[in-house]
Amino acid sequence: MGPVGAVVGGGQLARMMAEPAAALQIRLRALVEAADGAAAQVLPDSPVGTPKDIADLRGLVTGADVLTFEHEHVPGDHLRALQAEGVSVQPGPDALSCAQDKLHMRTRLGELGVPCPRWARIDSPADLESFAEQVGWPVIVKTPVGGYDGKGVRVVSSAVEISDWMADGGPLLAEEKVPFVRELAALVARRPSGEMRSWAVVETIQRDGVCAEVVSPAPGLEPGLAEQAEEIARTVAEGVGVTGVLAVEMFATAEGVVVNELAMRPHNSGHFSIDGSVTSQFEQHLRAVLDLPLGDTAATAPWAVMINLLGSDLEDPSTAYPALMARYPEAKVHLYGKAVRPGRKLGHVTVTGDDLATCREKATAAVAILRGENPSEEQR
Amino acid sequence: MGPVGAVVGGGQLARMMAEPAAALQIRLRALVEAADGAAAQVLPDSPVGTPKDIADLRGLVTGADVLTFEHEHVPGDHLRALQAEGVSVQPGPDALSCAQDKLHMRTRLGELGVPCPRWARIDSPADLESFAEQVGWPVIVKTPVGGYDGKGVRVVSSAVEISDWMADGGPLLAEEKVPFVRELAALVARRPSGEMRSWAVVETIQRDGVCAEVVSPAPGLEPGLAEQAEEIARTVAEGVGVTGVLAVEMFATAEGVVVNELAMRPHNSGHFSIDGSVTSQFEQHLRAVLDLPLGDTAATAPWAVMINLLGSDLEDPSTAYPALMARYPEAKVHLYGKAVRPGRKLGHVTVTGDDLATCREKATAAVAILRGENPSEEQR
Repeated sequence: MGPVGAVVGGGQLARMMAEPAAALQIRLRALVEAADGAAAQVLPDSPVGTPKDIADLRGLVTGADVLTFEHEHVPGDHLRALQAEGVSVQPGPDALSCAQDKLHMRTRLGELGVPCPRWARIDSPADLESFAEQVGWPVIVKTPVGGYDGKGVRVVSSAVEISDWMADGGPLLAEEKVPFVRELAALVARRPSGEMRSWAVVETIQRDGVCAEVVSPAPGLEPGLAEQAEEIARTVAEGVGVTGVLAVEMFATAEGVVVNELAMRPHNSGHFSIDGSVTSQFEQHLRAVLDLPLGDTAATAPWAVMINLLGSDLEDPSTAYPALMARYPEAKVHLYGKAVRPGRKLGHVTVTGDDLATCREKATAAVAILRGENPSEEQR
Repeated sequence: MGPVGAVVGGGQLARMMAEPAAALQIRLRALVEAADGAAAQVLPDSPVGTPKDIADLRGLVTGADVLTFEHEHVPGDHLRALQAEGVSVQPGPDALSCAQDKLHMRTRLGELGVPCPRWARIDSPADLESFAEQVGWPVIVKTPVGGYDGKGVRVVSSAVEISDWMADGGPLLAEEKVPFVRELAALVARRPSGEMRSWAVVETIQRDGVCAEVVSPAPGLEPGLAEQAEEIARTVAEGVGVTGVLAVEMFATAEGVVVNELAMRPHNSGHFSIDGSVTSQFEQHLRAVLDLPLGDTAATAPWAVMINLLGSDLEDPSTAYPALMARYPEAKVHLYGKAVRPGRKLGHVTVTGDDLATCREKATAAVAILRGENPSEEQR
């Protein structure tokens, strides 16, 4: 009874899909890396396996109405084979390839006329030196495949600094270092039949290449820039044929925005929507990939601030609930059921309200408590 | 990692507890009636069993931080035995007895000075006749134990109409038929350490003894009456020693409010809070029974209207999603994974917004679509 969704991946994104799936009576099944991982803890039907093995994917999609993803690391050939067998793969392998391969992404964005940093494909140290002559050192170099959360990205001032990557043989992507004012993200959802809905453009604050904080909407964003950012997200979604949620990370510069990265799934920049929007990115992703009409993306409060919990001094951050909840009864706490490791994304806190500074202060302080920074005795 | 909660019951209330449990990394385990029921569909850890069997309860609470309930049909002796073994039973058996036995409830409410309809214990037809002489026919007669959703309640005009119940032997509860203007419900949550938080008083609309619609807050409620209703809920919670969510159903009369029924668990009158409050009744119940500080109960919109889906002409109401979602992108749909039966509570829809009439109209129309009342072709 009800639609059946199959998702590749057993991390926090699949875990957070479980909540709206339950509400909408969508039976969600996840292909997980470990039987006790973030998603498996909350989904009764979570087979252990790997998307590298098409047999595991075939098992996952048996009886499912759709195959979707919480990460991009899935062989395109497997997805094409499943499509040929009649499986609804959302987003499809062609769209997904733009999120899997950054060189391909840059090429497609260029074809779509979407503003990007200057970039080049690097096959040799000489290629990088010649690119740096045009744009100036330092240069951003990325491995086209497999990077996430700052991994596979380097800021380099000479070709020597990527000699290990060069030795691996594959091509690299070089990009100019954009002198950005701040970072933005535009999220849009698109269904196979074409309907799109976007959330207000958010500001994202990264630390050490990892998303640390998201403010919705981006404070003081000029309407023209907001429109440009949203238009870019829609152009990419439509041009690339994305289905589900697309997150477009952007740099805002003095001249406008340029696209940094794409993700074709719910994204950290949209976690605020669970508590700050009529329809969360997780519900919307499920609706979109099932080709159901999309939900209202209106904000439920003037401001939403989401702060990530990245590592903790506590063995179990939930032991900080008494202190946190007593001080911040309005904080919406999300923990992902993951073991603590330094810098690991363990959870997030969202605070919504009428005053941005207050929301940010409360969310920041709440996360500090989850990190083990104890409030004073008196405040406990 | 994280607290472990054990809940008795596998229906929609346990199912809706699963969502905040996942967010807060509370491992929720439910003792369910059937392996494919509403809660078992969304909770990986849901042993099949019955609370009548203390062995099943013992299995359920092994390793759990608390035992709580989605219904009251649990033998008090079992709960006292578990308490003696060191299990945290929330609400405790003494409090719960007021929700299990309506004669006991009336006695306790009387002791607490809470306004109630006139009532009497009925052991014989003569008792009923003598009570009716005081309050006038018709009289409401209830079986003290086991009733729900209008079952175990009769409006009678003579003692003959309850002769079958009299033949069963147990005492009955008779109450005067209150000439009420409307029905209200006051919800409060209380933790073992005493903290209480209440939501705004709601109006409930019953049809055939079943909750059909809830409006939050109760429209046009005089501040004095709202205060009285909230105060009653707090008095009962504290006086009876309730922990978790307490729902107090009340009749509003020309003279004030009188208490109709109590429930010591999340209640249909609080479903609006999932989409209409900072902290839902399901999250609050889990926090309260785990003795965690309570969450903010503020509304996220001026109005929230919740309409129940009671039966459907559709074999699977989720097949109406395309029509429903296209017309009402703001509707928050909740289906419970239950097979369709006439009049059965299958789900609910909440719409929040600035205008009550609009919210009610949209929620009503959305539920009509789930019931199989098709919009015209043009509107699909």
